[in-house]
Amino acid sequence: MYTLYSMQWSGNSYKVRLAMAQLGIPYKLVELDILKGETRTPEFLAMNPSGRIPLLEVAPGRYLPESNAILWYLAGGTPLAPDNRIDRAEALQWMFFEQHSLEPNLGNARFWLTLVKGGRTLHEHAIEDWMEQGYQALGVMDQHLRTYDFFAANRYTIADIALYAYTHVAHESDFNLNAFPAIRAWLRRIADQPGHISMDWQPKAAAMAE
Amino acid sequence: MYTLYSMQWSGNSYKVRLAMAQLGIPYKLVELDILKGETRTPEFLAMNPSGRIPLLEVAPGRYLPESNAILWYLAGGTPLAPDNRIDRAEALQWMFFEQHSLEPNLGNARFWLTLVKGGRTLHEHAIEDWMEQGYQALGVMDQHLRTYDFFAANRYTIADIALYAYTHVAHESDFNLNAFPAIRAWLRRIADQPGHISMDWQPKAAAMAE
Repeated sequence: MYTLYSMQWSGNSYKVRLAMAQLGIPYKLVELDILKGETRTPEFLAMNPSGRIPLLEVAPGRYLPESNAILWYLAGGTPLAPDNRIDRAEALQWMFFEQHSLEPNLGNARFWLTLVKGGRTLHEHAIEDWMEQGYQALGVMDQHLRTYDFFAANRYTIADIALYAYTHVAHESDFNLNAFPAIRAWLRRIADQPGHISMDWQPKAAAMAE
Repeated sequence: MYTLYSMQWSGNSYKVRLAMAQLGIPYKLVELDILKGETRTPEFLAMNPSGRIPLLEVAPGRYLPESNAILWYLAGGTPLAPDNRIDRAEALQWMFFEQHSLEPNLGNARFWLTLVKGGRTLHEHAIEDWMEQGYQALGVMDQHLRTYDFFAANRYTIADIALYAYTHVAHESDFNLNAFPAIRAWLRRIADQPGHISMDWQPKAAAMAE
């Protein structure tokens, strides 16, 4: 059985928990607290030198980091992963976009505004940049969603899961989605997918009983 | 024939030019200058709402952005793209790492220190962050390369191309690679691959004559 090193609060970890729930993949969950330095211990760094979660043990002693790489690993060959050349490339396109334009801005704003006490004061200027660039990324997404229901392959895929993770909690870190009606409709569409779980859903009872 | 919208100076554009050279794919090159706003015109934004290069026209009127998604699109089914599940996931892992931990730091430092006059003064504090986080990313890469010759699949792949683009010009923006001997050996290994082209190689004569 897979072991997933995860943090309940983390959007990147939530992507993997959501995909595993929808794919019906059982796993053992190891919950870590980044604020307590639990991803910076020698033991964790030996598994992932980047010191980041999520991390998936795919075989005994073999560890795969990077949420979006884990999504491809788990969803490959299932309907959640596009299977033709251009659809696959367009799903990847949005997943790379997510990692350099959305997650660093929405994720950092979320970390410092909702998780770290006094974070707003500590990173005042950076937060301004994150808000500005985060809104730019949301604008690009909204423009796409005015024409398409999903991000790739005209259906629900791991590209949607990747972009949903931080977008659906953007309001918790001061982002106002009123100007992005297509994004708001898409968020409802994603939450309505079969097998959807919320970010605070606890997989322990279900998955760890397997 | 493909049309590639590119900028000679851009590391992300270089990735695509390098892969196309090694794959022997002819293309028409359209050189754009981001400093002159040539990726922010209504015409370009209609092709790519993100306003970024590289951008590949994959079919008439169909445009694929994101350098690393373009690499997968072009290299899929060739030796440059890993073809089994775990190797593919590990190549993706490093390409996502490149886009959130390497390129934003080395690429931003390069942009403001080498391309924009007065950039060093304008972004003094940000440059400190980029240097610190860029060195962290280089440390993770060096640690991997102390054990492995390449980033994925035990051979030269698009993961190496993605990571090479900004790393091989890091010294131009103040990064000192003396502490990373494994990276320096890997840079030489990549430059020695058959069909390698340098960043300033001009494809026009060769490719546009096809």
